[in-house]
Amino acid sequence: MRSLKFKNNKLFYLDQTKLPGKELWRNCATIKSGWKAIKNLKVRGAPLIGVFAAYCICIHLDKLSKKKNVFLRQLKQSLKYLESARPTAVNLFWALDRLGKVSLQSRQKEVKQIKKNIVKEAKLIHQQDIITCKHIADYGVNLVKKNETILTHCNTGFLASSGQGTALGIIFKTKKQGKNPTVYIDETRPLLQGARLTAWELNKKKIKSFLITDNSAAFLMQNKQIDKILVGADRITASGDTANKIGTYNLAILAKYHNIPFYVAAPLSTFDLSLKKGSDIVIEKRGQKEVKKVLGQALICPKETKAANFAFDVTPSKLIKAIVTDKGVIYPPYEKNIKKLIK
Amino acid sequence: MRSLKFKNNKLFYLDQTKLPGKELWRNCATIKSGWKAIKNLKVRGAPLIGVFAAYCICIHLDKLSKKKNVFLRQLKQSLKYLESARPTAVNLFWALDRLGKVSLQSRQKEVKQIKKNIVKEAKLIHQQDIITCKHIADYGVNLVKKNETILTHCNTGFLASSGQGTALGIIFKTKKQGKNPTVYIDETRPLLQGARLTAWELNKKKIKSFLITDNSAAFLMQNKQIDKILVGADRITASGDTANKIGTYNLAILAKYHNIPFYVAAPLSTFDLSLKKGSDIVIEKRGQKEVKKVLGQALICPKETKAANFAFDVTPSKLIKAIVTDKGVIYPPYEKNIKKLIK
Repeated sequence: MRSLKFKNNKLFYLDQTKLPGKELWRNCATIKSGWKAIKNLKVRGAPLIGVFAAYCICIHLDKLSKKKNVFLRQLKQSLKYLESARPTAVNLFWALDRLGKVSLQSRQKEVKQIKKNIVKEAKLIHQQDIITCKHIADYGVNLVKKNETILTHCNTGFLASSGQGTALGIIFKTKKQGKNPTVYIDETRPLLQGARLTAWELNKKKIKSFLITDNSAAFLMQNKQIDKILVGADRITASGDTANKIGTYNLAILAKYHNIPFYVAAPLSTFDLSLKKGSDIVIEKRGQKEVKKVLGQALICPKETKAANFAFDVTPSKLIKAIVTDKGVIYPPYEKNIKKLIK
Repeated sequence: MRSLKFKNNKLFYLDQTKLPGKELWRNCATIKSGWKAIKNLKVRGAPLIGVFAAYCICIHLDKLSKKKNVFLRQLKQSLKYLESARPTAVNLFWALDRLGKVSLQSRQKEVKQIKKNIVKEAKLIHQQDIITCKHIADYGVNLVKKNETILTHCNTGFLASSGQGTALGIIFKTKKQGKNPTVYIDETRPLLQGARLTAWELNKKKIKSFLITDNSAAFLMQNKQIDKILVGADRITASGDTANKIGTYNLAILAKYHNIPFYVAAPLSTFDLSLKKGSDIVIEKRGQKEVKKVLGQALICPKETKAANFAFDVTPSKLIKAIVTDKGVIYPPYEKNIKKLIK
């Protein structure tokens, strides 16, 4: 189960907009098609877009100048260009920043060697992401008891990362340990990552699950059908405030009201300590069509109707019971404990 | 603007499953097709299905026996039959119950006269519903200030009643008074009554509105975009606990958390004083397909995925700021004040 492949300097990805109907692998041959794949959510999931963007740089290296000065300037432009694909998930910036640092560190070397170092770093980011997912699952699995029912939102599994995922990765591990989880899946409008991707992953892993509309969660909680909530993250500030798919903040409030523990799972690369609090996070606003249509099909409303489409929301850390990372579980007080873990 | 017509003992209705794409009027020629129209939500909205069901009895009267005893028995069966179309909205039961009472009161009369009395009562229910909507709007409009932004859920306008509606009726009146309302519309999955019907009604009334996914409401509240929430109701208990479209309870919790007033608007016929509290209300569970597909089109999830589809939820009265009725606005303590209003 994986969502991208990089071999002989060729980059392939599973087109996630075609799932679950079709498992379509595409070759990403240019940086521009990589940018579009991220922008149009063919490749999505905070950890995955970091790895994918790094490889997009790799396939672009041979198109850059052989003169070092020009090469370094063009490389910098290429990194900037890919960063512009999506504004909220920080993993994209984090991965590209690592490549930028490598190029700076190798700037005394020949262009050929700089390229090699960049490709090496991209592969390292990829390998680390796989291990990171394992560690998140190892830490997170202890939070889930036998026969519990978990609510999740959007998609955070092997489609969202290069490993087994973050929140879903934890659920996969509980299944492996024989804890027999049941999962309620928020469909996650507008782009239905829950219905299309999470339902598909849970089927592949033979985990009992039920799809629900996003507005059903409160009813289930009221009727004691949910033991805990596990979600991923796109950016976490120094205070623990967490940006994630629109609807996450909604769930966090409902969880608080019903006294249900609400957990976030994310690699350390999702933390952005340059930001103090949630309101500093840039929230991506996307096109109206994603709301006005479903799966790009017929309009669900009159054509003259206007729609508002915010791709993410921010959950204040006070609503989060704990953040599961690859270096351990972080509990409040977040500001202090995040600083302690990320030195 | 109306959603049903009854003339020369013929019943016509606007097929709401075809909106907003098509304004298709259908003739309801048999009680069975009436039952199906309610079951399949071609006719929907708590007040409207009461009126429609009453007229379904009217068009059925000539198919009943001319012998009084048999007639009365068959009539009773017909009332029971229509009641079975949907379990949650009490207006259906309330309207049919009124026809049942009329037949009992007239049981000494000839069959012909009993029939006349039933048709008269059905027309009275219809006329009263129109007036009821007016009164709700008159009382509710005072709760809305100039330039306020209102969030609403599902559809509660002229498609949901025989008049101008309940919650939407109030919004229409604020527009008429020059209060310049802005409305955020929850799309209201799974059947998208917000996107399909409310957006359509607000366009017809030239009221500024924005369609949002159901999971966006918390984000908007956090960003101070919502001044108040106005919804309808399908059944209200003696304690003020309110069953309404799935997702309403969700909104009520979010409103409480953000300190935004949450109002319910409903005619007195929506109150069911035989029920003490919300947990006594039967919640309709509908088919999986409504969740697994959108507008009956392509699947949004793998075909083997199971879905849970609860049509309604129950909002405890402690989350409701006030209930706007046709006899006035009811504030807490609800048990006492509901009893006082409905004698």
